[in-house]
Amino acid sequence: MKELPSPVTIREVGPRDGLQSEAPISVDDRARLISMLSQTGIPKIEAVSFVSPKAVPSMAKAGEVWSRVERNPEVRYSALVPNRKGAEAALEAGGFHSLQAFIAVSDGYNHANVAKPVAESIKDVADVVAVAKEENMPVEVSISAAFGDPYEGDVEPGRVLGLAEKLVSVGAAAFSLGDTTGMATPTRVWALLETLRDRLPDIALNLHFHDTRGTAMANVLAALQAGCDEFDSSIGGIGGSPFAPGAGGNVSTEDLVHMLIDMGIETGITNLEALLEVSEFLRGVLGHPLRSQVLEAGPRWLSYAAVKAD
Amino acid sequence: MKELPSPVTIREVGPRDGLQSEAPISVDDRARLISMLSQTGIPKIEAVSFVSPKAVPSMAKAGEVWSRVERNPEVRYSALVPNRKGAEAALEAGGFHSLQAFIAVSDGYNHANVAKPVAESIKDVADVVAVAKEENMPVEVSISAAFGDPYEGDVEPGRVLGLAEKLVSVGAAAFSLGDTTGMATPTRVWALLETLRDRLPDIALNLHFHDTRGTAMANVLAALQAGCDEFDSSIGGIGGSPFAPGAGGNVSTEDLVHMLIDMGIETGITNLEALLEVSEFLRGVLGHPLRSQVLEAGPRWLSYAAVKAD
Repeated sequence: MKELPSPVTIREVGPRDGLQSEAPISVDDRARLISMLSQTGIPKIEAVSFVSPKAVPSMAKAGEVWSRVERNPEVRYSALVPNRKGAEAALEAGGFHSLQAFIAVSDGYNHANVAKPVAESIKDVADVVAVAKEENMPVEVSISAAFGDPYEGDVEPGRVLGLAEKLVSVGAAAFSLGDTTGMATPTRVWALLETLRDRLPDIALNLHFHDTRGTAMANVLAALQAGCDEFDSSIGGIGGSPFAPGAGGNVSTEDLVHMLIDMGIETGITNLEALLEVSEFLRGVLGHPLRSQVLEAGPRWLSYAAVKAD
Repeated sequence: MKELPSPVTIREVGPRDGLQSEAPISVDDRARLISMLSQTGIPKIEAVSFVSPKAVPSMAKAGEVWSRVERNPEVRYSALVPNRKGAEAALEAGGFHSLQAFIAVSDGYNHANVAKPVAESIKDVADVVAVAKEENMPVEVSISAAFGDPYEGDVEPGRVLGLAEKLVSVGAAAFSLGDTTGMATPTRVWALLETLRDRLPDIALNLHFHDTRGTAMANVLAALQAGCDEFDSSIGGIGGSPFAPGAGGNVSTEDLVHMLIDMGIETGITNLEALLEVSEFLRGVLGHPLRSQVLEAGPRWLSYAAVKAD
C-alpha cells in the first residue's frame, strides 16, 4: 500500500477550469492569479482557454490575460483550445509549452459541451495537432466524463480506451482523464487505469477529479496506487463546467498538496503557505467562500501552533 | 488494490457527535432523527451521550430523548458515557447494546475535553467497565486525537498502542480510533493500523474520521485497504467537538455509503434515498446547509436521470 509515486506533478487548472464557471473577473486579476501561482513551485499551469467568449464569457480576452502574466521560466504553461481556430489563436499569442484539446467519451456530454458528436470532435483534435505540429508543440487531450456522463450514465473503460486509441492515431501526446461531474469512485479509477495501461502503456496520463460527491481525494489515492503521477487541481477548489449540471469544484490544489506533503510525496511545492496566500487573494477577488478545506482550517501542522498561541 | 472488506459496518454518530456541536434542538427532533435513522438499514447508532448538560448543552436530556425513540430490534444502539456516573445513567435508561467510553491519547486534548490528564481518564474507563459488567455489556473506547492532537501536534502510533494496551488491561472490548480534528492522512492510517494489528490482533477496530482538511474519504479508503471494516459517520456530515478548534464535520454517512455502494461493498444500506430523506429532515431542523455533497448533488446514478427529465 505504501509504494506510491514520488515526485508527483500538479497541474494547476484554477485559472481555466476554475474560473470558467465563475462570474467574469478582470483581466488584471486573472493575470495576477496566474503570476502568483507561477511563484509557488507548481510545475504546470493551464493558464487560459481560447474558446468562444459568447459561450464562456469568463474566459474572454485570453490573449490579453496571457500577455500580462509574469511568467516563470520554470513553469510549463498550457492553453485550452477547442479546435483549429483556437489553436491558431494560442500559437499567435505564443509562449505556451503545450496545447490542451478536449473531447468527451459519449455524445451526451460532448454535445452539451461543444454542440457536436464525439466523431466530429476527434476531427477537431486532429486539426489542433496539425496546427501545433508547425511549432513542434505537443497536444494533450482532456477526455471529459471519462468515469460517467451526466447525460448518459456510466461510462465503461472499454469506451474510453476506444476513444483514446483513436486520439492516439490522430496524434494525441498525452491524456487527462476527467471526472467532469464527480461520478468516479476508487474501483472505477483502478478499472480505467488498468485498461488504459494495459493497451496504451506508453502514453502519459493525468487524472482530473471534481469533488462533486466527496470522492475526489479517495480517487487521487486510488490513482496514486495505480502509479499515476500527475493530477489536475484547482486553487481554492473552484471549478466546474457551465455545461455540466452539478459539476462541483475541482479537487483543491492546497488540500491535495497538503495531503501529499504529509504523505512524504514530493510535488516541488514546499511552501504551502504561499499557495494559501494565492487562495486568499482569489477568495477576495471572487467575493465568496472557496471550497478548500485547508484554507478554512489551516494546515495540520499549524493547528496546534495556532491553538497554543491563543 | 481490490481486495477490500465487505460487508462493512457503518456506525451512525450524527445524533451524538453530530449534534453535540450544533445549537440545541428539541427532544422530539432528536428522538425523531434517531427513529428515522433506525429505519435506513444502518446497523449501529450512537444515540445519546450521558455527559454534563452544562458542558455540552446540546446533549442534555439524554434519557428523555432515548425514551421517545422508536427502536428497531435490528439496530445495535450505544450511549457515550464519560465516567461511572454516566454509565450508571445509561444503564438506568436501559436498552443499549454497548457503552462508549472515551479518552484522548495525549494530555493536551484530553484536558481540553474532560479537564483531566489521560491517566485519570483511564480510571474513568475502568469505572465504566465495572458498571457495564453488571449487565454483561461491552465497553468500546473512543480514542480521540489518535492521528494528531490540536494542542500537542503529531501523535505517533506507538503512543496510541501504549494507551490501547492499558485500556485492554482495564477491560476495553473494542476501539474507535478518532481523527478528532482531521489530522490524519492515508500513510498515518496505514502506520497506526499496522502497529495496532501487530500487537493487538484480536481487538475490534472502528475508524472515526473528521473531514477537516479534505482527507476523510481518502483515509476511509486507506483503512479499508488495511482491512478495517467498521466506520463511524454522521448523517449530513455534521459534527465536531466543541472542545476541538477547527474540528470540521464527521465523514458524511450518505457520501460514505454512496461511495461504498458504487464500489460494490455491502453495508446493509441499500436505499440511499431513505438516508437522504433523513438528511433533508435534519437540514430542515438545523436550518443551515449540511456538509454532505451527495445531499447537494444527488447520487451519481440519478444525475443523468435528473438531467434527462429537464
